[in-house]
Amino acid sequence: MKIYKLILMRHGESKWNKLNKFTGWKDIDLSETGISEAKECAKLLKSKEFNFNYAYTSVLKRSIHTMWTIIKHLNQSWIPIKKSWHLNERHYGSLQGLNKDDVIKEYGNEQVQKWRRGFDVALPQITLSEKKTLALDPKYSHINIDDIPLSESLKNTSERVIPFWKTHIYPNLKAKKNIIIVAHGNSLRALIKHLSNMNDADIMKLDIATGIPMVYEFNNYFEPIKYYYL
Amino acid sequence: MKIYKLILMRHGESKWNKLNKFTGWKDIDLSETGISEAKECAKLLKSKEFNFNYAYTSVLKRSIHTMWTIIKHLNQSWIPIKKSWHLNERHYGSLQGLNKDDVIKEYGNEQVQKWRRGFDVALPQITLSEKKTLALDPKYSHINIDDIPLSESLKNTSERVIPFWKTHIYPNLKAKKNIIIVAHGNSLRALIKHLSNMNDADIMKLDIATGIPMVYEFNNYFEPIKYYYL
Repeated sequence: MKIYKLILMRHGESKWNKLNKFTGWKDIDLSETGISEAKECAKLLKSKEFNFNYAYTSVLKRSIHTMWTIIKHLNQSWIPIKKSWHLNERHYGSLQGLNKDDVIKEYGNEQVQKWRRGFDVALPQITLSEKKTLALDPKYSHINIDDIPLSESLKNTSERVIPFWKTHIYPNLKAKKNIIIVAHGNSLRALIKHLSNMNDADIMKLDIATGIPMVYEFNNYFEPIKYYYL
Repeated sequence: MKIYKLILMRHGESKWNKLNKFTGWKDIDLSETGISEAKECAKLLKSKEFNFNYAYTSVLKRSIHTMWTIIKHLNQSWIPIKKSWHLNERHYGSLQGLNKDDVIKEYGNEQVQKWRRGFDVALPQITLSEKKTLALDPKYSHINIDDIPLSESLKNTSERVIPFWKTHIYPNLKAKKNIIIVAHGNSLRALIKHLSNMNDADIMKLDIATGIPMVYEFNNYFEPIKYYYL
């Protein structure tokens, strides 16, 4: 049986991962460590002779710069990259920019665990005026303002990731194209939940490491089989 | 009258520009100077408040990496980049990889001037076996093998650049999108000849500097008016 392999990768460490801040849609660049992680990822993919036809990222620079570093070091800079806000990190609402320990101090560990572990639990929202500013960002100005979130649960994230997967990525997989996706902890969780048909509780326990590529295998009917770190 | 500005940019210095070699379709990366040129270009574009909606490059890494460096430093990494072999450098046939002075020694200055200054003069060709190898490069494997050249004149280059301009780029310009193209000395010459309606002799005298963005202005009927270095 022929096996088709999709590569999923969380962006390398960002400057705010390092500072232990909630990042979400804040457009924070990679740290030096993050760039090294992307190079290591390329080395690993190269040693396993991965070649790609299509690449997908969010519109956030930490995922785009991770992708650029990977494909440059694979000598595949020429492949098309589709960048979409549908693959963005979960929108962390008014927690964005706050230190995670400070948030625990302010709201208590129990509340923070609910926010982080509840599939359908939204976070404290940004203000309408902050949303208006976000809607003026040229990255998002083509989006219907009603689709721009004030904050998201993983369920909300999933509701934009999965339609994008179905419309843009999966058809290319079925056309036997080799695909790499560089996205974020929660947009990848949403995708893995969908592919592996995981329940709401289990997906919240899945932590995805930065900088290590994951392989998702499909059978020759293009049905998902399993995933593992490369 | 509203003026629409298209940005044209030749890639920064490559490692073979530095070694004075004919490069053509050989996929040679930027030199350190080339990367600095791209950063300087970004600084200049930023100071003039250029924002882009769409970006176009060839499939050669010296143009792609120039583009990445520019848009990263403009904080516009998220814009879509369309990469096409139609924007590649002129195919320099069997001269590719040879030192320009050595070629003059071997063939004589007069012959080399004919090759470089004749609009419709093709260059010595690569072998059919070299063409077959080129056709197996995944960058080119989707192209009909008859469309892969053994060498090109500027006229041949033009015959692939202009249809791409008309089909992919110009419609977006007419849709009032801000566009940046990073390409090569001869693919840009081909485009400028078309836009400025230059004759065959004049275009061959036009040298395009690496690393300095050019502005091409269009009027509000989207007719080309003039071009200049920024």
